[in-house]
Amino acid sequence: MDFDLNADLGEGYGPWKMGEDEALMEIISSANVACGFHAGDPVIMQRTILEAKRRGIDHGAHVGFPDLLGFGRRRMIIDPKELSAYVVYQLAALAGMAEMLGHPITLMSFHGALGNMIAADEELAVPLVAAVAAFDRSLILRSSMSPSIRKAADKAGGMRVETVFHADRAYDENGLLVNRKLPGAVIKDQAMALDRVKQFLDDGTATTIEGKKIRISARSILVHGDTAGAVEMAGKVRALIEEGGHRVTPISRIAA
Amino acid sequence: MDFDLNADLGEGYGPWKMGEDEALMEIISSANVACGFHAGDPVIMQRTILEAKRRGIDHGAHVGFPDLLGFGRRRMIIDPKELSAYVVYQLAALAGMAEMLGHPITLMSFHGALGNMIAADEELAVPLVAAVAAFDRSLILRSSMSPSIRKAADKAGGMRVETVFHADRAYDENGLLVNRKLPGAVIKDQAMALDRVKQFLDDGTATTIEGKKIRISARSILVHGDTAGAVEMAGKVRALIEEGGHRVTPISRIAA
Amino acid sequence: MDFDLNADLGEGYGPWKMGEDEALMEIISSANVACGFHAGDPVIMQRTILEAKRRGIDHGAHVGFPDLLGFGRRRMIIDPKELSAYVVYQLAALAGMAEMLGHPITLMSFHGALGNMIAADEELAVPLVAAVAAFDRSLILRSSMSPSIRKAADKAGGMRVETVFHADRAYDENGLLVNRKLPGAVIKDQAMALDRVKQFLDDGTATTIEGKKIRISARSILVHGDTAGAVEMAGKVRALIEEGGHRVTPISRIAA
Amino acid sequence: MDFDLNADLGEGYGPWKMGEDEALMEIISSANVACGFHAGDPVIMQRTILEAKRRGIDHGAHVGFPDLLGFGRRRMIIDPKELSAYVVYQLAALAGMAEMLGHPITLMSFHGALGNMIAADEELAVPLVAAVAAFDRSLILRSSMSPSIRKAADKAGGMRVETVFHADRAYDENGLLVNRKLPGAVIKDQAMALDRVKQFLDDGTATTIEGKKIRISARSILVHGDTAGAVEMAGKVRALIEEGGHRVTPISRIAA
Repeated sequence: MDFDLNADLGEGYGPWKMGEDEALMEIISSANVACGFHAGDPVIMQRTILEAKRRGIDHGAHVGFPDLLGFGRRRMIIDPKELSAYVVYQLAALAGMAEMLGHPITLMSFHGALGNMIAADEELAVPLVAAVAAFDRSLILRSSMSPSIRKAADKAGGMRVETVFHADRAYDENGLLVNRKLPGAVIKDQAMALDRVKQFLDDGTATTIEGKKIRISARSILVHGDTAGAVEMAGKVRALIEEGGHRVTPISRIAA
Repeated sequence: MDFDLNADLGEGYGPWKMGEDEALMEIISSANVACGFHAGDPVIMQRTILEAKRRGIDHGAHVGFPDLLGFGRRRMIIDPKELSAYVVYQLAALAGMAEMLGHPITLMSFHGALGNMIAADEELAVPLVAAVAAFDRSLILRSSMSPSIRKAADKAGGMRVETVFHADRAYDENGLLVNRKLPGAVIKDQAMALDRVKQFLDDGTATTIEGKKIRISARSILVHGDTAGAVEMAGKVRALIEEGGHRVTPISRIAA
Repeated sequence: MDFDLNADLGEGYGPWKMGEDEALMEIISSANVACGFHAGDPVIMQRTILEAKRRGIDHGAHVGFPDLLGFGRRRMIIDPKELSAYVVYQLAALAGMAEMLGHPITLMSFHGALGNMIAADEELAVPLVAAVAAFDRSLILRSSMSPSIRKAADKAGGMRVETVFHADRAYDENGLLVNRKLPGAVIKDQAMALDRVKQFLDDGTATTIEGKKIRISARSILVHGDTAGAVEMAGKVRALIEEGGHRVTPISRIAA
Repeated sequence: MDFDLNADLGEGYGPWKMGEDEALMEIISSANVACGFHAGDPVIMQRTILEAKRRGIDHGAHVGFPDLLGFGRRRMIIDPKELSAYVVYQLAALAGMAEMLGHPITLMSFHGALGNMIAADEELAVPLVAAVAAFDRSLILRSSMSPSIRKAADKAGGMRVETVFHADRAYDENGLLVNRKLPGAVIKDQAMALDRVKQFLDDGTATTIEGKKIRISARSILVHGDTAGAVEMAGKVRALIEEGGHRVTPISRIAA
C-alpha cells in the first residue's frame, strides 16, 4: 500500500529557524507550509516550495491565526467571515508563489488552535471549508479525524478530506484525538509511538486510550518537525512503512 | 480618446479607514489595491475586489514595503532577492483572492518608497520587475515615467508598462517627477492642478517646472484618494475628460 | 460634587487616525491611552501625553491584546503569566514615556475583549491586577462595575478601583453591563443617553434594563471617542455636569 | 584590571529561540536585551531580566528598528523625531519591567542597522542620544568607537559612553570598525580572535587591518551570542581575562 508521510514545515520567521526542514524533506512525501500568519514569511515560503519541487514531494498551505507571538496556538474568537478572508489570503499567497515556481500546491490544512477549533465546531468549519473550496475545490484538505470537517466538506460540494494518523497522540473510541491536557494524550515514548505506527500499518487500527481497537481510515501519517529527534523519528517511521512492504507516496498520487 | 482614471484604494487596516473608497470607485476606472504590507488586510482586500467587480473597473496589486507603521513611505534597504519574494507574496495574495471572487487583476504598481526607489534604481528595478513578470507577464505595470522601470520591463521579456500622469505633481525636462521636497514639486492648488489635466488632455503635454512644454505619453491619470477633497477632485478630473470628448475607460481595455 | 469625564484616546496607528483626540481633550478630564498592542504607537503616545500635560488632565495606560487587526476586541486565550508580561510591558512603555515628558500617569484600564474577560473571570483578573499592582500600586484601576476586579484588587493588597458610569450602556440589576449582543444593551439615542447621565448626576442611580432603579457608585463618566458625534456628546455631558452644579475634575484629584 | 564581558541576549521572539542565553549568562557580566522591535517580546524580556538579576549582572536596553522580519539589520530611513519616540518606548518598556522586577537597568545600546547608522551620522546620533539622556541620563551608552556618538553624548549634557572592544572585527587606523562587506573585516578564526583579545588585555591595543598598532580605550568586550560556538568562545575570552590577572566585572561597577 501507499502511505503519505508528512510534516509541518517552513515554520521559521525572518532570522529565526524552526525545525530541520531540509533533513525532513529527504524523508517525507508531503509538506504543510506555514503562510506568514502564525509562522513563515515570503522568503521561507519560496525556499520551502523550491525544496519540495526539487524532491518532487507534495506541499500545501498550512493556514493559521494571525498570531506570530503565539505561533497560532492560542484561540482567537474571530468573525467567521473575516477569518475566511484570512484563510483565502494565506492560501492564495502560497498557491500563487508555488504556481510561479512551477510546483503547484495540492493540499491544505488548518494549523494549531484554528485546526482544533474547526475540528470541534461545525459552525466554524462550514464557512472556512467553503472558502477553501471556493478558492480551489481540487485541494486535498488534510485534518485529524473530525466529523465537523467532513460535513463541512460535503456541504462545500465535496472536497477530498484526508485523515491524518498521529503516531504520538492517543485516540478515543470515536477516533478523535484525546485532549492534549489529559494524561496519556501525548505519547512521548518513541518506542511506544513506533509500535502504534506499526500496528496502524499492519492492520489499520489504533488502540484507544480505553484499550479498545478501532479502525483508522488514513493514508497520511504526520510526524512532528519541531521537536528534538524529529528527523530520527521521521526516518524510523519511514523505515517501518518500507519494511512493511508499503511505499511512501505523496498524498496527491494516492487514489482517494 | 480613452483615458484611465485611477486611485490607490484599500488603504485601511483592521479598524482604521483611509480615504473614501466607495465614493471614489464611482468615479475612477481602475484601482491600485494595497495588499497587507504597508496597508490593507484580507477583509479590506476582499471588499475592494468585490466593489471593483460590481462596477466593472480594473484593479490590481499595489505592493509595498513591510512597514505598516510607516505606511510604506520610508526607505528600507532590503536584499533584492528577499524583496522579490515579498512582492510576489503580495501579488499572489491579491491575485488569488480576485480570481476566486471572479474578477481577476489586470495590473500592478509599486507603492511609496518602494516605487520611488525602483523608479530611480535600475539595479533594484530589474529583479523586482522580473519577479512580477515571472508571476504574470500579462499584468500591466503602472508607474511614473521611469527609464529604469522601462528597461527592467524590456529585460523581463517585455511587460506592458503604462505611465501615469500626475495631476498634482511638477515635472522636469525629462518627464520625471520633481522631488517632493523641492519647492513647487507638489501642486496644492486644485484649480492649477485641473488646468494641468486640461492641458494634458488637450495636447498631451505638461509644462515643466522650468516652464518648458514636454510631451507626456500617458493614458492613465492618477488622482489621490487619501486627501480631503479627493472625491471632489476626482469628479472634476472625470468631468474634464468627458467634456473634452474623451471617455473614462479601464486601462486594460485601452490598446497598448 | 466632582466628576471625572474620560475617553479612550491615542487609538490611531502609524498613518491612521481614530477619533478627534484634540477636540475631546478640551472637554474631558482624563484619558485612557492605547499603548501599541491593540492601537497606538510611540509617536501617537508621545503626542497624547504632551496634549494631556498641556491641559493638565489625567492620563494612563489602556492596555489590550496584541491584535492590531482586531483592535483588541477579539477574545484571545493567552496564558495568564504571558498576558501579565504583556500588560506590564504596555504599562511600562507609557509610564516611562510620560515620566520623561514630565506628566506621570495616574491610572490604567483594560481595553476591549481583555477588559470584558477580566471583568467576568476572577481567575484571570487576579494575576493581571497583581501584575499592575506590582508595577505601580498607586495607579487608579478604572473599570466597569466588576466584582472580580474588586476582589483581584483586594488580593493585590488594595489598589484603588474606580467604577466608570457608561452613559450609553444598559445595566442589569447587579449593576453589571448588559451584554452588547442583547437588544437594548447599547443606547444609541443621544437624548436618552443624556437623560441617563442626568439621572446619574442627580441621584446617583441608573434605571436597569428591567426597569428598576439601582445605585451606581461612580465618579467617572466614560464618553466614546471614536464614534461620529463623539465630541458633541462629550460636550453635552460636560454641560450637564456643570449645569448640575458639579465640577469636571481629573479622577486623581477626587478623593477615593 | 576590571573588564566587562557582554553579549546581546533575549533575541528570541514568541516560539522562536536565538542563542543560548542561559549558558552565556553564566559567563558574561552584562547583557544587552532586545526590547520587542527587532527581537524580544515581553515574556522573553521578563525572563532575561530575572536571569540577570539572579546572577547579579548588569543589563540594559538594546533598541532597534521596528523590523522583526529583518531583525533590525536593514537600514530604514525614519524621521529622527519619530525614531526618538521608538527608542524611548523600547527603553521605557524594559526599564519599567526591570524596575518592577527589582533589577534596574544600567545601560543601553543601539542594535544592528540603527547602531551602524548613528555611529556614522552625527545628525541622527544627536537627537537619539538626546532622547536617551532625557529618559535617563545615568544610563551607560555602550557602542563601538564612534566620534558621532561621543559628540552626541556631550551635546546631551554628558552621558557616559563606553566603547566596546570587538574580538572578531578588524579595526582601521582611526579605531573604527572596518565595514563588514570588506575582506578581512570579520575575523572568523577563533584562535586569531582570541589572540586579539589577549593583545588587547595585555597592552590595550589592537592591530589594524593595515598592520598598525592602535590604542583601544575600552573596558567592555563584546562576544556574540547567536553563532555556533558562542558559549565556548565566551568561556575562552573569560578565561583569558582571568588568566591575565584581571576580573570580569559588570560595567556599572567599573569606574568611568
